[in-house]
Amino acid sequence: MADWNRLFATRMGEVVASDIRERMKLLQAGQIIHLGGGLPDPDIFPYAALAEASARIWSDPALARTALQYAPSEGHAALRAWIADYMTGIGAPCDPDNILITNGSQQGLDFVAKLLLSPGDKAMVEVPSFIGALRAFDAYEPVYAAYPGGNPVGAKFCYVGPDFRNPTGTTMTLEEREELLDLAAGNGMAILEDGCYERLRYDGAPLPSLLAMAIARHGSIEDTPVLHTGTFSKTIAPSLRVGWIAGPAAAIRKLVLIKQASDLATSALNQMLLLEVVRSQLAAATETACAVYRERRDSMLAALAEHMPQGVRWTRPEGGLYIWVELPKQLDATLLTQRALAEEGVSAIAGAAFYPRGVPAERNTLRLSFSMIDSEPAREGVARLGALVREMLQSTAAVTAISSA
Amino acid sequence: MADWNRLFATRMGEVVASDIRERMKLLQAGQIIHLGGGLPDPDIFPYAALAEASARIWSDPALARTALQYAPSEGHAALRAWIADYMTGIGAPCDPDNILITNGSQQGLDFVAKLLLSPGDKAMVEVPSFIGALRAFDAYEPVYAAYPGGNPVGAKFCYVGPDFRNPTGTTMTLEEREELLDLAAGNGMAILEDGCYERLRYDGAPLPSLLAMAIARHGSIEDTPVLHTGTFSKTIAPSLRVGWIAGPAAAIRKLVLIKQASDLATSALNQMLLLEVVRSQLAAATETACAVYRERRDSMLAALAEHMPQGVRWTRPEGGLYIWVELPKQLDATLLTQRALAEEGVSAIAGAAFYPRGVPAERNTLRLSFSMIDSEPAREGVARLGALVREMLQSTAAVTAISSA
Repeated sequence: MADWNRLFATRMGEVVASDIRERMKLLQAGQIIHLGGGLPDPDIFPYAALAEASARIWSDPALARTALQYAPSEGHAALRAWIADYMTGIGAPCDPDNILITNGSQQGLDFVAKLLLSPGDKAMVEVPSFIGALRAFDAYEPVYAAYPGGNPVGAKFCYVGPDFRNPTGTTMTLEEREELLDLAAGNGMAILEDGCYERLRYDGAPLPSLLAMAIARHGSIEDTPVLHTGTFSKTIAPSLRVGWIAGPAAAIRKLVLIKQASDLATSALNQMLLLEVVRSQLAAATETACAVYRERRDSMLAALAEHMPQGVRWTRPEGGLYIWVELPKQLDATLLTQRALAEEGVSAIAGAAFYPRGVPAERNTLRLSFSMIDSEPAREGVARLGALVREMLQSTAAVTAISSA
Repeated sequence: MADWNRLFATRMGEVVASDIRERMKLLQAGQIIHLGGGLPDPDIFPYAALAEASARIWSDPALARTALQYAPSEGHAALRAWIADYMTGIGAPCDPDNILITNGSQQGLDFVAKLLLSPGDKAMVEVPSFIGALRAFDAYEPVYAAYPGGNPVGAKFCYVGPDFRNPTGTTMTLEEREELLDLAAGNGMAILEDGCYERLRYDGAPLPSLLAMAIARHGSIEDTPVLHTGTFSKTIAPSLRVGWIAGPAAAIRKLVLIKQASDLATSALNQMLLLEVVRSQLAAATETACAVYRERRDSMLAALAEHMPQGVRWTRPEGGLYIWVELPKQLDATLLTQRALAEEGVSAIAGAAFYPRGVPAERNTLRLSFSMIDSEPAREGVARLGALVREMLQSTAAVTAISSA
């Protein structure tokens, strides 16, 4: 019998299933109020536009041939060009050579870590951080430093999501962005900018991306330290699995070789479908998504104000899909989420999941998502959570009273 | 200005563009006779079946939602089940839990290396080997041992393509398969079996896969040391980017976590398209592919017999897409391919590209592919190559005569 455990690479001992994905599987059955997930709402995907684009491709023999043969590793030329124009339009002037097409932005995060990290290298990451980024980085065995506050000396890159980031929903101010660019310049480190939510802004004025600001500083994308990941998963649909990395051509050329060695190329069919749809529908699809998610955010914020006891605080995101809740220090959010699921049929994610290895987690934090939930069930779910928090606070107070008696 | 070269991970210094992919780009323009490539022929892709499958998915709201939302990391359940049945049907009984869906089999090769290799670990590989496999493995910094002949002690796995492998077109005999299973058992190493050409057999009786033979030895897939990669790229179409890894559930579970951290999931749309098409069309599509490629193989073998001077030898593949040519020892195939392209407008790939780092290449070897070329241009291309070989042999003889004078 093969001893697979002996064969696994050293780092694989550390690889465990993400609590979130496992929980999502459990929750697929049953009458649960989902405040945990974070999937885009399939009700708003542009089905008709994709069906039309698909019919156009199949009815044109030349397009159909291109759609089914291997695509170039760097991406379908017309889509690369479209994305370069799109990035230019949002303040980050660049050429197709500055773009690599990836399978969603998750693959971009994986590839940048593969490009930059040798085992034992330092990676700075926002704390708390997107769990998918942490799992991608873990495979290359870095040591982590927290941003902000950690020691940047020797770090290969700093990973941030400037706009309404997962999990906190918070946005970096213009000043914080300038400071991070200074920190990167001062320490010779790269910046990995996760732009996956940037189109989902519901209030306030858009801020320039770190990539745009770095280009403004240096005069050209070629001289910047920024790799920016983007995706159509939140605006069009996730399962086309098309995203991109934008950055200096010197880094993109290496990333193309990584793409080639990893899975040769992203599906040409999906890149062509995407291109047809974004050309005509991106603005409308983004507007629809923003209208739907804005209303859901507002409902959930109202429910929190109505049902959470004093001492509980939460963020008020200007966009994205998440609200971050801070319970009174004495409460353990992992226990809360376990009880909420078992006793109240409400799912939420304890904040501890979003901390990198070696960085202490704040155990009284909680991520809620409003992306898939209408105002009535959101209010009901938050009310049940609020009641549980109240009950746990009372038991804690009782325990404290007993121990100090 | 960012110093990207300083930031790249140690191993990235070694990563260079594959000569083949670069050459393919160069050759996309111009009147070249392509004996180099190895792409499947787009004339035989099942366009109508895919167009119909696509229309069915878009016209059914429930299917369309599933097609666009994130798929499970392990793969679309119905496709996993279909592949488990398919593997069972070809002698390797297994369950859906033994299958991970990947973006083509290239991603399977990458993931197995990511699972098993820490820097400095030993990987055995067939010599010469599929260049895409070598580039995938390189990223995890192994040292290589040649199979057969190299020292297997301490190797994490042995990579082989038993059927009509790239680049040589040769097939492992049943006895060689048994010996490799013994070698793996004796050294506690895994076997990574690349099954990508296994359906493209034009003559002779099919041999059982190493996975099937290991299951027969051990009684269950769970006790085997084999991970088997498969793909629909050669039978249906490459750009759906759907392949799989089959193996013991203990390894598949870890590979699912790698998939999740690498790109979350393969496109649900593409998995569903593929499933619709393989259910009704795989047998017919495979038959068409075999008929077309068999004829092209025969034409190229006939052209070689007609035009190659004495002292040149080549393989007679029972399937796949490649013929391996061995020139007389004194000839350098790299020089030959450069001159063939520049002077004769004929592309071919020198064999040196297919040797892993640290293993000496046989410089007098050459890979030809017959997948995309009809009999007339194939004969013309081989005739020009043959004339060049003759000329180079005469100059070498002249040089030898002068030096020994």
